[in-house]
Amino acid sequence: MSNEKIILGIDPGTNLMGYGILRILAGKAELQAMGVIELHKYESHYLRLGKIHERITQIIDAYHPDEMAVEAPFFGKNVQSMLKLGRAQGVAITAAILRDIPVTEYEPRKIKIAITGNGAAAKEQVAGMLQRILHIPKEEMDIQLDATDAVAAAYCHFIQMGKPKSERKFTSWKDFATKNADKVRK
Amino acid sequence: MSNEKIILGIDPGTNLMGYGILRILAGKAELQAMGVIELHKYESHYLRLGKIHERITQIIDAYHPDEMAVEAPFFGKNVQSMLKLGRAQGVAITAAILRDIPVTEYEPRKIKIAITGNGAAAKEQVAGMLQRILHIPKEEMDIQLDATDAVAAAYCHFIQMGKPKSERKFTSWKDFATKNADKVRK
Repeated sequence: MSNEKIILGIDPGTNLMGYGILRILAGKAELQAMGVIELHKYESHYLRLGKIHERITQIIDAYHPDEMAVEAPFFGKNVQSMLKLGRAQGVAITAAILRDIPVTEYEPRKIKIAITGNGAAAKEQVAGMLQRILHIPKEEMDIQLDATDAVAAAYCHFIQMGKPKSERKFTSWKDFATKNADKVRK
Repeated sequence: MSNEKIILGIDPGTNLMGYGILRILAGKAELQAMGVIELHKYESHYLRLGKIHERITQIIDAYHPDEMAVEAPFFGKNVQSMLKLGRAQGVAITAAILRDIPVTEYEPRKIKIAITGNGAAAKEQVAGMLQRILHIPKEEMDIQLDATDAVAAAYCHFIQMGKPKSERKFTSWKDFATKNADKVRK
């Protein structure tokens, strides 16, 4: 069995859906692709849902991920927005399930802690840290800022995967880096 | 173009998903099928979402509906339950969209008003009225009680379809029946 693993990270929304592909080899993470599915150009809410399914399926068929990590807020301001978010999440998750890809969900706060050590970190802080960890050119990072949370979800999953199941309670990326120096790409 | 129309009614939930198929011919509705997709037997929430997609797609491919009507509560007790409901709704709706089937959503209250004239009608009242309108044997109705809301959604859509777009504000089935005596199956 190959040691390689591909992780698809998804940040589902009804206007924009970010995605990021990490390739894990010999305990090191490498960014394969990142991007944003622009849904706001479709007026119909229904059409957007259909597009989410189509595009996620295309991405799965292009990169053959072994696992999917989803940024999934469990709390929201109101039931209306949660219903809409739930629809987008449900469609993205189902696209993976139909391809037999295991799905793991992470709360935004947990992802931020995993990357920056701070659960309230700004999007730019998360992006800056990912840029350094994954050696992403700054220009690309600037263009694809909306894909950052998806890459972060994938990276958070990579950190979780590296731990024995009983110990899968990370505190921060720094903490992980200290404890797993051999896994950190210099 | 044939005058026949097939309406698929769906009552999406994460434990049970009801469905009903109405065949509309010459302005009359006839029940083709009704049933319940039992999701509670699958422990995994993810597997349930996958099953919703699979089963709704199977039903679409078996009955070739022209339209889909979905019972969709827009308000709920808490954001958690709305998120879960949104996921189930999103997957069911997307199964239709991927087959180019237009989707219309109806609030439970509107469906109840359309069938019984009472927005707070009990499930049994809705079932009793549908049983009479559609000549469903009582035994079958008793077995498939959880499918009632799905059949009611399809029937509500049938009533809406029959109106000119500008007049699509029904008050009750009784009201509809009075105004459209020729469309009511005796």
